[in-house]
Amino acid sequence: MEARPRDTAPQWKRNAYSVIFEADTRAGRMFDVVLLIAIILSVGAVMLDSVHTINARYGQVLRAFEWFFTVVFVIEYLARLVVVRRPLAYAFSWLGIIDFLSSVPTLAALAFTGSHSLVAIRTLRLLRIFRIFKLGQFVGEGEFIVNALKASRFKIMVFLTAVLMLTVVVGTLMYVVEGGQNGFTSIPKSVYWAIVTVTTVGYGDISPVSVLGQTLASALMILGYAIIAVPTGIVSAQMVAGPLGAKATPAPFKQVICHVCQATEHRPDAEFCWRCGEKL
Amino acid sequence: MEARPRDTAPQWKRNAYSVIFEADTRAGRMFDVVLLIAIILSVGAVMLDSVHTINARYGQVLRAFEWFFTVVFVIEYLARLVVVRRPLAYAFSWLGIIDFLSSVPTLAALAFTGSHSLVAIRTLRLLRIFRIFKLGQFVGEGEFIVNALKASRFKIMVFLTAVLMLTVVVGTLMYVVEGGQNGFTSIPKSVYWAIVTVTTVGYGDISPVSVLGQTLASALMILGYAIIAVPTGIVSAQMVAGPLGAKATPAPFKQVICHVCQATEHRPDAEFCWRCGEKL
Amino acid sequence: MEARPRDTAPQWKRNAYSVIFEADTRAGRMFDVVLLIAIILSVGAVMLDSVHTINARYGQVLRAFEWFFTVVFVIEYLARLVVVRRPLAYAFSWLGIIDFLSSVPTLAALAFTGSHSLVAIRTLRLLRIFRIFKLGQFVGEGEFIVNALKASRFKIMVFLTAVLMLTVVVGTLMYVVEGGQNGFTSIPKSVYWAIVTVTTVGYGDISPVSVLGQTLASALMILGYAIIAVPTGIVSAQMVAGPLGAKATPAPFKQVICHVCQATEHRPDAEFCWRCGEKL
Amino acid sequence: MEARPRDTAPQWKRNAYSVIFEADTRAGRMFDVVLLIAIILSVGAVMLDSVHTINARYGQVLRAFEWFFTVVFVIEYLARLVVVRRPLAYAFSWLGIIDFLSSVPTLAALAFTGSHSLVAIRTLRLLRIFRIFKLGQFVGEGEFIVNALKASRFKIMVFLTAVLMLTVVVGTLMYVVEGGQNGFTSIPKSVYWAIVTVTTVGYGDISPVSVLGQTLASALMILGYAIIAVPTGIVSAQMVAGPLGAKATPAPFKQVICHVCQATEHRPDAEFCWRCGEKL
Repeated sequence: MEARPRDTAPQWKRNAYSVIFEADTRAGRMFDVVLLIAIILSVGAVMLDSVHTINARYGQVLRAFEWFFTVVFVIEYLARLVVVRRPLAYAFSWLGIIDFLSSVPTLAALAFTGSHSLVAIRTLRLLRIFRIFKLGQFVGEGEFIVNALKASRFKIMVFLTAVLMLTVVVGTLMYVVEGGQNGFTSIPKSVYWAIVTVTTVGYGDISPVSVLGQTLASALMILGYAIIAVPTGIVSAQMVAGPLGAKATPAPFKQVICHVCQATEHRPDAEFCWRCGEKL
Repeated sequence: MEARPRDTAPQWKRNAYSVIFEADTRAGRMFDVVLLIAIILSVGAVMLDSVHTINARYGQVLRAFEWFFTVVFVIEYLARLVVVRRPLAYAFSWLGIIDFLSSVPTLAALAFTGSHSLVAIRTLRLLRIFRIFKLGQFVGEGEFIVNALKASRFKIMVFLTAVLMLTVVVGTLMYVVEGGQNGFTSIPKSVYWAIVTVTTVGYGDISPVSVLGQTLASALMILGYAIIAVPTGIVSAQMVAGPLGAKATPAPFKQVICHVCQATEHRPDAEFCWRCGEKL
Repeated sequence: MEARPRDTAPQWKRNAYSVIFEADTRAGRMFDVVLLIAIILSVGAVMLDSVHTINARYGQVLRAFEWFFTVVFVIEYLARLVVVRRPLAYAFSWLGIIDFLSSVPTLAALAFTGSHSLVAIRTLRLLRIFRIFKLGQFVGEGEFIVNALKASRFKIMVFLTAVLMLTVVVGTLMYVVEGGQNGFTSIPKSVYWAIVTVTTVGYGDISPVSVLGQTLASALMILGYAIIAVPTGIVSAQMVAGPLGAKATPAPFKQVICHVCQATEHRPDAEFCWRCGEKL
Repeated sequence: MEARPRDTAPQWKRNAYSVIFEADTRAGRMFDVVLLIAIILSVGAVMLDSVHTINARYGQVLRAFEWFFTVVFVIEYLARLVVVRRPLAYAFSWLGIIDFLSSVPTLAALAFTGSHSLVAIRTLRLLRIFRIFKLGQFVGEGEFIVNALKASRFKIMVFLTAVLMLTVVVGTLMYVVEGGQNGFTSIPKSVYWAIVTVTTVGYGDISPVSVLGQTLASALMILGYAIIAVPTGIVSAQMVAGPLGAKATPAPFKQVICHVCQATEHRPDAEFCWRCGEKL
């Protein structure tokens, strides 16, 4: 709403805004779909470029591809800045920052030849996929999930803090129990093992060998298996309450009986009887 | 209903239909049970045939077995085409296509000697087991599950899209952090590792070795451990709402607007406007 | 109730029954606790006996221990048969069969010297621990869980059947995709891998190496991660509905208004107004 | 409340109490935050000290660090004893014992030079992090989780007992089936494997090789995958009921029996019997 250009803005600006930022018109939907495909293709190019055999044969093509999309995204970013009502507000919004950072890594490669660290920043471009959520139908569903997670974020934080503390305590105990051997070479490594175990991931790169270690590990596994119920219960309870919670609060009916026809269950704000039309 | 032959169809056709497609008569139930056993036996034969030691000794018998069932299933498929009211509609229905493909691999082996690719198609025959769900009591329960999943399919798609994006971002970061070593040899391989980790499968064929890598992996594991709550919460909420949901469906308000005061949201059985008392 | 000896039975029999089968008297509770400890000790002895180093030193003692408990359990079993009202009904009940089988393995060792197969039957004795559930407070909680599982057993069976079919299909595909290598040496082995993967156990003894294989495995993992929501949702919905379900069904109030005082919300079976006492 | 010094206590004592034990004043919040940072730093120092390369270079500094925090915590512990109303009640409370044990390991190192066993006790200091929960906003959320777990503790204990029995039975069977090979060298080791499997951790340090063993393992995995639904369902149901549970508590009926017809279950505000119309 606020981001839309003022009614006094030139017509081309308002048209461009509806195409780039909105998806209500045919052109607007087309723009979003094309952008989506471009994002997926450019991310795919970066991924393929990292495979040695593909890089050796098609490295040149993929890098040209990469540059093409970078130019497209820079133009798109500038266009967004031009048509939006308050460019600064957009530039410092969550989506605006992601849009900006999407193009930085490739451009930065011109100044800095350290290609290694460059690739690290490049991955942020992938976050661009989140724009999909701006498309149609999925917004509501995404919001439902995000709202449920937001409403239960404190509970989940408390839970995760407790789990982390548990892994630190159990990890340290395992370091002592296994005597710094069998992969438990330091407390941080042992805590890493405890996280791998309590989350039921279980790589097996580090695993206890002593009887006491295996007993302690068993206890941790069973605990991890049981307490997965906690975040699940929290989110389930939130989602069950979600759709009902809001509507259940206001009294559904006016506590009044029509003095003519004895009808009940009037709207809370009704002034006339729904059955006989008498003033309540 | 529609699939059943017309009442003007010959008696034998209508009888055959009820035996082959339905399970209301004694003969119909018997047919389904025999078919079920045949499917399990034929799948079992293909599975055993793939074990080297069994193949060496009983390969001939198993292949004869395989051909016997293929002939039976082809006859069964043709019978279905004959007795059904509209053969084309059946042939292009979901179940019809599976029935057809079930017999193709063995027959195709006559023309093409490439036994390897052949086996790939053969596995589709296993989908035939889904026919079990046509049998009695389990239909309702299966429908309950399918309906709950259908109702929450958009939420689950949004969730899975978010998880996939997460694995792409984290996988790429790990590729950079581990420097293309310890199994993280390309971005796709690293993304594969991220999926193995976030789903808490944790094979351990690829696992981080550097301190930064293990820290990032720990964060991903804890995230994967916590967000399993999301699909679980979605389906739980759906299933809890399930039996109640039915009652919520009928419009809670009358779809009429008062012609005097434009008030909406009247009771379904209201005859007078609740705001101005006018006859609706 | 029915198992209790008739009132015409001798007093010692009725006393013995209340001690052995019930836990309402002081002696009855004591009997159950002693039995519980005996079961745990005898199972512990079998477990320790299997450890090579312990077996070498304390094998004789442990085997004597084992025989002592076997004699105790045989006597206990015979006592149960004597005091119960209908010995045959008990002997062929679930608990009776377990009680009987608990003592068989040790006794069977006298006739058959094949110690290997013997140990296999011996493990059934461990089921004796289920007797704990006959003790006090935990019965109600155990019943709650068992009832929720019973009520959702068809849904869970449909779900597990679908999961098994999925593992058979994906396992066979992986056998083809990985070309019988990297551990995928036969279809049964590949199905075993699929089960290890879809349940998120992930041993890593077999894991895909080819790009197509890893892609297929990723899809299976994400599916396994998402569909864990199904049994969880089923049981959650059942447990949520559990205590409320029964009472929510009948209409909570009679749809009638008192013609004297206009009171509503009468009991469904009310014949007189709760406010003014008028006949409704 | 009770822990707060009497109103007759000197002013400095009451002020010190509010700073050290409470977080309602600016000074009290500051104290808690500083303490929190000190705990995290001291735990971090112990963790880093266990890494060989860091220990070799910064061992001296880290040990000085360690001693500094130990002195701080001892002073803090003594201050708590001085300002609290009943020092003994605090000293033997859960938090008091943790506070005391936090400083013991470092001090004990003066008397006993056995550095190895020392580190084991030192880890208990990590439990100090639980003090975080005394800080503000998170208390309520933490209590919600703890209450839900408390309310379902018997159900979860019954469930975990059943799971443990299952692992003992399946573990013993696997010991027999795999013939004491492939890592299944004793019953306790096999039970450890069963726990690793049923909790879906799946290290892969021990995994079945025989066909029968893999079949049994598959059954255990699928069982473990399905029964994770039980604790999740228990906690979900508890958390869903949680906020509503409160309303269900007040007796829905008047605790009175009609003196004419003995009818019960009258409305809480009923003045006349619903069955015979008699004044209650």
